[in-house]
Parts: sequence; structure tokens; C-alpha cells
Amino acid sequence: MSEKKPIVAITMGDPAGIGPEIAVKAVIKQHIRSICRPLLVGDAGVLRQTARLLGLDIQTRAIHDIPDVLSGKDTVEVFDLENVDLEQLIPGKISKMAGSAAFEAVREAIRLAMADKVDATVTGPISKESINLAGHRFSGHTEIYAHFTGTKRYAMLLVHENFRVIHVSTHVSLRKACDLVRKERIIEVIQLLDEACRNLGVAHPKIGVAGLNPHASDGGLFGNEEEKEIIPAIGTARQQGYQVDGPVPADTLFAKAAGGFYDGCVAMYHDQGHIPFKVKGFIWDEENRRMKSVKGVNITLGLPIVRTSVDHGTAFEIAGKGVASPDAMIMAIEYATKMAINRSL
Amino acid sequence: MSEKKPIVAITMGDPAGIGPEIAVKAVIKQHIRSICRPLLVGDAGVLRQTARLLGLDIQTRAIHDIPDVLSGKDTVEVFDLENVDLEQLIPGKISKMAGSAAFEAVREAIRLAMADKVDATVTGPISKESINLAGHRFSGHTEIYAHFTGTKRYAMLLVHENFRVIHVSTHVSLRKACDLVRKERIIEVIQLLDEACRNLGVAHPKIGVAGLNPHASDGGLFGNEEEKEIIPAIGTARQQGYQVDGPVPADTLFAKAAGGFYDGCVAMYHDQGHIPFKVKGFIWDEENRRMKSVKGVNITLGLPIVRTSVDHGTAFEIAGKGVASPDAMIMAIEYATKMAINRSL
Repeated sequence: MSEKKPIVAITMGDPAGIGPEIAVKAVIKQHIRSICRPLLVGDAGVLRQTARLLGLDIQTRAIHDIPDVLSGKDTVEVFDLENVDLEQLIPGKISKMAGSAAFEAVREAIRLAMADKVDATVTGPISKESINLAGHRFSGHTEIYAHFTGTKRYAMLLVHENFRVIHVSTHVSLRKACDLVRKERIIEVIQLLDEACRNLGVAHPKIGVAGLNPHASDGGLFGNEEEKEIIPAIGTARQQGYQVDGPVPADTLFAKAAGGFYDGCVAMYHDQGHIPFKVKGFIWDEENRRMKSVKGVNITLGLPIVRTSVDHGTAFEIAGKGVASPDAMIMAIEYATKMAINRSL
Repeated sequence: MSEKKPIVAITMGDPAGIGPEIAVKAVIKQHIRSICRPLLVGDAGVLRQTARLLGLDIQTRAIHDIPDVLSGKDTVEVFDLENVDLEQLIPGKISKMAGSAAFEAVREAIRLAMADKVDATVTGPISKESINLAGHRFSGHTEIYAHFTGTKRYAMLLVHENFRVIHVSTHVSLRKACDLVRKERIIEVIQLLDEACRNLGVAHPKIGVAGLNPHASDGGLFGNEEEKEIIPAIGTARQQGYQVDGPVPADTLFAKAAGGFYDGCVAMYHDQGHIPFKVKGFIWDEENRRMKSVKGVNITLGLPIVRTSVDHGTAFEIAGKGVASPDAMIMAIEYATKMAINRSL
């Protein structure tokens, strides 16, 4: 990367969800254009239609390769995959076409990043059901990125301000998640978390590791994963010089982390990390029956390329209504930019 | 109960923890004395010493049976069990003596309530390790109450304002908790939750039921407890006239519940309910390295007597320092009073 602002590829997500809307809303922000060169990846027709629906008077420019300099200024640039038939696209509806278009945008963004044509990637929300209908058997973005970049050692990090949570496992059943609580994996995510905290500006990360069982098993009264796997992992990590507390009962850990006690936390399974994260960062608007803010960024650690994402779903129920909050998308672009700059230093 | 204010028995909890401190701080509040007649249950010497340490100029009166009228006014009344040797009591230290004293206070409070001598009970925090040292093999208050009242059908409810969470299971390993996700039990807790919401003033409770697996298994991609147990339970509950949503992915459910979308939630295991509850209600004071507020009440549903409790622990690390927040204890007494009055109507 030159001293130019980083090019950030942003996938539109499922075209029938809120992805195109939040992408367009985010990239026209002056602040976003001042820190990076955003490049939407998806179907230009969908993005143009979205801009019209939002009543935005913007120019879009469809491109098919990365020019030396993106034009920036007042034009929204789209790496156009021409893969959506607008007449068949129904907001809120799961379909093979939408799943296929969403998947191709992700694969293209990965390709552009692996070829060093963009400096970072940000993903909009996809529907697992739609991409499965389209024949792509992945449980989420994280797994798609791992597959197409050939990465074995990776993990999902959620970030909202100083609240950072990494996950030992993600899209597996809770029973399987119990099996995946293994010493080597816990050490691996502690290392990834420490590195990520440092990259995000924390000089000496203080890490808290959750127990798997209630009350972290209360000395072995309920479950033995703490004794067999988690405590030995923490011991080894400490010997390696990491600053690690735990195992801490999960309810205590996340209440303290939400208040700033830890720089990063290790969650033993998907919901253990996602529940506190969303309770803290998502704000439900009861009057209008929708999320009024959905702060929080999802970062895949361990990849050879930068990938951040919103941490909410396609929100099919409000797709096409123009009311979706772009907060999380804006934050995801900010984080991607920051990480791209750090990598280039 | 006559038209007199309800008598609320409040156990001191582990004498080496913050229980005695928060009990004394709570019962001297004018507001508490205006709604009920509080009766501390424990060792009068410990409670007197606590008042002195807090610099409180109050009178305590040790009693050994419930007189017709508790004196009220400016005296703190203690149902004195005379079971702590102050010279051996060390704040923050686990001991057989402390465990024994804490346990006896709970058993006495249950006895008083079962004999209709008090109208409700509230428990201070105990140490599982101390009561086990004293030979009492219980994993928590809930189990002690169930045992001594002969109750089979009960559940733990956490309450903070309009955020109410009931638990399918509590103090068991996470693997065991997966096994306990059973249709009949889920229907049972939906019924208990609906009844509790109505008793707390919600005319038509709207209940959200969490999935067990991430994304509520995403249509069976990760785990099958949703399909086998949770969905059938919700179906039956609806047929019975309950207003029930679900299974909702747990991270979404609790973010919406925290914003007021549901009157009550069903958590499939201990931490699933406790994590969002504490992230919402507990406020960590990073500067002073302690919880500055610990709002939230724990209510055992299904018992023949009223039992509420704080939902935090003994906080041994700050015991004897005079800095513990009585917020949760005050709320627990308020709830116990409200439930006692509702029962007597």
C-alpha cells in the first residue's frame, strides 16, 4: 500500500436483506470517504436501486477491475458482478439467486484482497439459508474466508469500544462446543486475542478467560473442563508471558469486561460471547419494534487478509424499508481501515 | 397475614462475606421500614459488629421467637441464632463455622416461613465452599429451599425491572444442561414464568424462549434440541393459551428483552440467563475495581413460601470494608414484600 488511503472492498451481503442499504448509507459518509477509498462489491443495479429508494442523489460507477486510482469524491464505485435480476428480487425473501449473488460478492472480495488489489475487506450480512440454496455449504463468512484463504488457525473476534471477545468455537452445536474446549485451542485464541489487542492499540493486554460451566464449575462441582483444559491452558499462556485471568465465571467475566476491567475476553462458545456483546451494543427500539442501533464489529483473526463485518443479520423483516441502522457497517469499515494501515506499517 | 405490614425474614448470608453488611444497610432504610417489618436471621453479635464497623448508631434487639408485633421503629431486630464466635471470624475467609452459621440461618428462615411466622424470606449470599465444609451438600439456596419445603417443581427467576429470565436448569455442568433441555420441563418453566409475570403486574405476559444452540441451530444445522424438544414445547404451551415466541437465537432474544420486547424469557441453562442479566444490571467501577451497583433479584418460583435473594455472591474480596452496595438486597426485600402481599390477597 502506498501512502494513499486504503482501498476497502465492501460486499453488499444478501441483496434481499439490509446489506445493500447499510453499505450505501455508510460509504456516502464524509468521514468514511476521508479515511479510506470504499469499493462496493456486488450487483451495481441493486446498489443503484437502493440509492434511489433511499432518495439519495448519488452517482455510481460500475467497474470491472481495480484502476490505479479510484475516483473517490462524489461517486460511489461498485465492482460490478452483474448477478442479480432486479425483477426477480423480492426484499425479505430467501432465494437461490440472492444467495448466489451474496456468495459471489464474498468470493470476489477475497480474491481481490488475496491479489493485493484491495487493502481490506468488509462483509455485509448474508443469509445462510440462501447461500445453502445456491449450493454453497458454509455456515458463515468466517468459514468461507478460512476456506478460500487456506487458513487453519483462525477465530472470530467481536469488538465494541473496549469490549473485545474471541471465541473458542462458533457455528457448532452446544454439545460439540463442549468437546471443542481444548487446551491447545484455548492457547491459540489467547495468542490471537493478545495480538489483535496490540494491533488495536492496547500495549499490555489484560485477558480474561471464561469458564465453560456455571460458576466456572465451582471447583469441579459441575463439569471438569475447567480443570482438564482451561486451567492448564491459562498456565501455559502465562508461562509464555501473556497476562491472563481465569477461568472466571462467565456471568461475572462479561459484567466486568463491559465495565472495562479486561482488554479482551475468551468465550468458550458462540452464545457465551455473543449474548453479552449484543446486550451491550444493540439497542432495541420498543416503540418502533426494531433495533435502533447495532454497534459491534466482527473481525476474523488469523487470516492473511483483513476481514471485518457487521455482527447483525440480514434483518429481512425491515429490508427495503430504508430504516436500517448503518452504525455497525460504519464501525466495520473504520476497523478494516485501521487494521489495513497497521499491517502496512 | 393481617393488614399489618408483612414480616420479611432476611438471612445474613455467610458471616465472612458482605451479607451482614448489605442486610444491615438495607433494613435501616426508611423506605424498607415503611413497606415491611424486616427481621434479620443470623448471629446478633455479627450484625452488631457490622453496624459498629459501618459507624451506624442503631439499636439491635435479639429475639428468639416471633412476638406478636415486631417493635419496628428505630430498632433492628435479629432472630438470634448465636452461632458465630466473633474471635474466630475472619472477613473473606472460607470456614466451616461460617458455612454452618450461614446454613442454619437459611434453614431457620425456611422454618419460620413454613410455620407462617414470617410472610416472606430473603437470603443473603452464601459460600458453597463454606457450607460444604460444614457438611451440607447443596449447590445453592434454590436447592436448599426445594429440599426443606419438599418442592419438586421449581425454577430460578432473575428479575431486574422488566427484564425477567427463568432457567430450565441451573447448577449443573453445561453438558448435563444440554440433557435437561426437555419438552416437559420447558412447558413447566413457561407456566411458572407466566404466573410470576402476572403476580408482578403484567396482565398478558409475552414470553420469549431461547434456543439452546447458536442461531437456535439455524434450522437444524447445529444441534437438534430445538426441533426435538423446544419447538414441541412451545407448540403445546401455545395450545394452552400462553403467548410464546421462539425458539429465538439467544443473542437476539436477550438484546430485545433488555430493550423491553418481552415480559419474560426462558433461558435453557444457567449462564445463558445470567450473562445478559448481569451485563445489564451490574455496573463495574473500574477506578475502584469493584461493582458499584449490582441490581437484580433472584426469585425461587414454585415454592410454598416466598423466597427472593440478591443475585451476587459473597464478594469476599471486599468483605469487612464497608463498601458493598446494598442495591440488590433492597430490591430483593421490595420484591419479597410485593409477593407476600399478593399471596395474602
